[in-house]
Amino acid sequence: MKRLFQFSLFLLGILLLSGCGSGVKQEQIRIPIAVATPERPAGQSDVIGLVTEPLEVVRVGFIGLGMRGPGAVSRFTHIPGVEIKALCDLHEDRVEKSQERLEKAGFPRATSYSGSEYAWKEMCEREDIDLIYICTDWKRHAEMILYALNNNKHVACEVPAAMTMEEIWDIINTAERTRKHCMMLENCVYDFFELTTLNMAQQGVFGEILHVEGAYIHDLRDFWDAYEGNWRLEWNRKHRGDVYATHGMGPACQLLDIHRGDKMNYLVSMDTKAVGSPEYIREKTGEVVTDFRNGDHTLTLIRTEKGKTIQIQHNVTSPRPYSRMYQLTGTKGFANKYPIQGYALDASQMDSDVALNHENLNAHRFVPEEVKAALMDKYKHPIHRELEETAKKVGGHGGMDFIMDYRLVYCLQNGLPLDMDVYDLAEWSCLAPLTALSLENNSAPVEIPDFTRGSWNKIKGYRHAFATP
Amino acid sequence: MKRLFQFSLFLLGILLLSGCGSGVKQEQIRIPIAVATPERPAGQSDVIGLVTEPLEVVRVGFIGLGMRGPGAVSRFTHIPGVEIKALCDLHEDRVEKSQERLEKAGFPRATSYSGSEYAWKEMCEREDIDLIYICTDWKRHAEMILYALNNNKHVACEVPAAMTMEEIWDIINTAERTRKHCMMLENCVYDFFELTTLNMAQQGVFGEILHVEGAYIHDLRDFWDAYEGNWRLEWNRKHRGDVYATHGMGPACQLLDIHRGDKMNYLVSMDTKAVGSPEYIREKTGEVVTDFRNGDHTLTLIRTEKGKTIQIQHNVTSPRPYSRMYQLTGTKGFANKYPIQGYALDASQMDSDVALNHENLNAHRFVPEEVKAALMDKYKHPIHRELEETAKKVGGHGGMDFIMDYRLVYCLQNGLPLDMDVYDLAEWSCLAPLTALSLENNSAPVEIPDFTRGSWNKIKGYRHAFATP
Repeated sequence: MKRLFQFSLFLLGILLLSGCGSGVKQEQIRIPIAVATPERPAGQSDVIGLVTEPLEVVRVGFIGLGMRGPGAVSRFTHIPGVEIKALCDLHEDRVEKSQERLEKAGFPRATSYSGSEYAWKEMCEREDIDLIYICTDWKRHAEMILYALNNNKHVACEVPAAMTMEEIWDIINTAERTRKHCMMLENCVYDFFELTTLNMAQQGVFGEILHVEGAYIHDLRDFWDAYEGNWRLEWNRKHRGDVYATHGMGPACQLLDIHRGDKMNYLVSMDTKAVGSPEYIREKTGEVVTDFRNGDHTLTLIRTEKGKTIQIQHNVTSPRPYSRMYQLTGTKGFANKYPIQGYALDASQMDSDVALNHENLNAHRFVPEEVKAALMDKYKHPIHRELEETAKKVGGHGGMDFIMDYRLVYCLQNGLPLDMDVYDLAEWSCLAPLTALSLENNSAPVEIPDFTRGSWNKIKGYRHAFATP
Repeated sequence: MKRLFQFSLFLLGILLLSGCGSGVKQEQIRIPIAVATPERPAGQSDVIGLVTEPLEVVRVGFIGLGMRGPGAVSRFTHIPGVEIKALCDLHEDRVEKSQERLEKAGFPRATSYSGSEYAWKEMCEREDIDLIYICTDWKRHAEMILYALNNNKHVACEVPAAMTMEEIWDIINTAERTRKHCMMLENCVYDFFELTTLNMAQQGVFGEILHVEGAYIHDLRDFWDAYEGNWRLEWNRKHRGDVYATHGMGPACQLLDIHRGDKMNYLVSMDTKAVGSPEYIREKTGEVVTDFRNGDHTLTLIRTEKGKTIQIQHNVTSPRPYSRMYQLTGTKGFANKYPIQGYALDASQMDSDVALNHENLNAHRFVPEEVKAALMDKYKHPIHRELEETAKKVGGHGGMDFIMDYRLVYCLQNGLPLDMDVYDLAEWSCLAPLTALSLENNSAPVEIPDFTRGSWNKIKGYRHAFATP
């Protein structure tokens, strides 16, 4: 048996390595590295289009009041029909600061939870909370999501919501069993250019969209100190791969209707060596770092079932202007956000009420500024139109974070499917473990599981839900 | 034996496909698809840094006077120390039109070759020509290069110079045997922003360069008709892969010192389905095309021996603004050409004579326009400085095509190594066959041969050669 196995390895070598004479010889088509899809637990079904009982008032508890949490607490004081029941952080002073925010906004004090690593569990066990809102570091996200779901709470969690395939499948299985909403707080899908462009895409302005790009390119060297216990830099030190892909993935996947008519089949990833972060640490502490795993620049390509492509990049250590690289290429048009916002369209796509300068337009150039302005006005997303009105009432908080929270609460109140479901959470978070697998295999293609387990084509086209008036 | 082989295939299946339970199982690290490197013929050696006998006058013959040829003939009339001995095209009228260009420039008539598919061979056989300059379609490039080399001519050939690995190795072996220069006419390396930025890179302005990008994104739907017999669209119809990568590859590889201290190890490639070109053909001719192989958008990632990355894109059918995506990411700075030219630098990199606004600078933004202008003036490439002078003498032709031709002749006249050698030709052209191989294997990594066969680290750093005064 052992010799048979050795012989088979020898044949494997011949199959994979053989190349003699000039040119290229190849005996067998390579297939992506298989990634397991665990069987769905008996008696469960998918949560595609999940709706839950409408909640007149959404009672919320927050975990994590360090960086992103306090802003979320403040935003919620501007959303109608919300009760802030509980605030939790390891540090009591942070909880107190958020209590002050409530007080200033004229809200009653919430229950404080702090002082223990697991104070949040007690909060999750309360009966008078509908939604747990998680803003802690990445390491604790999955554990908290699972505990909140298992206590029959809806959950919203900062990005990325999960860092391993095990965490992702645990979250899916638990969300499918409890039938509670589990949404990742990906805010960039609500940014003005992105949502306007998504609306244009859904109205057919760009024809069939074939390729989209996204990224997180943000020089964090000036910001590492803000992360408690240096957890974020440490995470990058220990993990190769695109560990923070969701800001690029969210807008890209919505444009391509991922698990609403298309699905991601496989990815390949490639990175540079790590130079910037080890150098940062050496300058800061004198330590000579030789074990930093995350490359300065990481690139990932994804191919979908319908023959479309996504490119995602990650770089948090190079001296570059901030960019999420938001870009789409369609058969009839093109959109680009960084470093300048612009659209290019086939002349055939320009209708008369928009094309102020029709004769001068062609697809080889970005449309002139006044045409862009007219397009962006015409295709302003209904959510932005609605929020303009609401913003007047609640005090002008019209940024993408507020829109995200507003939509979350609005959908819970109206018993609508949320804008982002647990499969979005899975698809956008899975790049961390799957790109690492590709990188460790010389950029070999890696299968991306169908996290819906067969339901990716049930809904045709991504759309936001609205209550019927 | 047959059963043993079947069993080995079974084991291979287990090795590659096994994945059970949740998460990811994998038994063996994937390696790139091997691509053969033929042994160097006995008695030959590399042509790294090749110099040949200085030529006081460079006597040139042109093949192909359709699209790119006539412009080249005109440019050569502005270069000192050139004799245009022969003009060749399948069509007599084209030869005659170029003769008129010579006449207008005050040059004597050249010998005309036309009327036969192989008229160019007779031209290559002449004893009084030093340089054969090839501007035909891609299909004939390699055949013509080989014939010219074998007739002891130096050769310059339009891009891409070769389309298959067999052609590439034939050209390398022949160039190494004949010890004649064989240069691909990649003009984009001489464009102003690229050459200025290369100079900045070589002076260390960007620190260590880790990632570079390049592309050919050009909506050719308005131009397909210009290609005789529709050869270019037909080539795309029959060939998947990045068939036209050299405009992106040239500047990228020069920035990374490819085969001057680093080498490309492997690539992965991914494409979208083909929609735009089949639709173009249907609209134009009514033909319903189902066999179009080149995807609308093709993306390629390359990793080098020194842990650096290159991204290359190809798109000739989408309504997008023209872009060669020229971009570099270094440890101390960043440069970007499309859609806007800009630099970002670590404050530490800004020296006092350039940083007009030093206090306001940081790496999170592009430097202000006046700083960019000061940088580009300070780091103007010696070639551009020299050509400004020459341009005054010869009549103001300062574009990148003229610079390319001027440098080619200058180096031949002074017995210097050319700016681009036969290994550049190979490295920049090999993307056509190698990306196709990756695409046919679900984006599997594909080895990039060391075309120097061991000499990639002989020269440390890419530099242009200049005659000692």
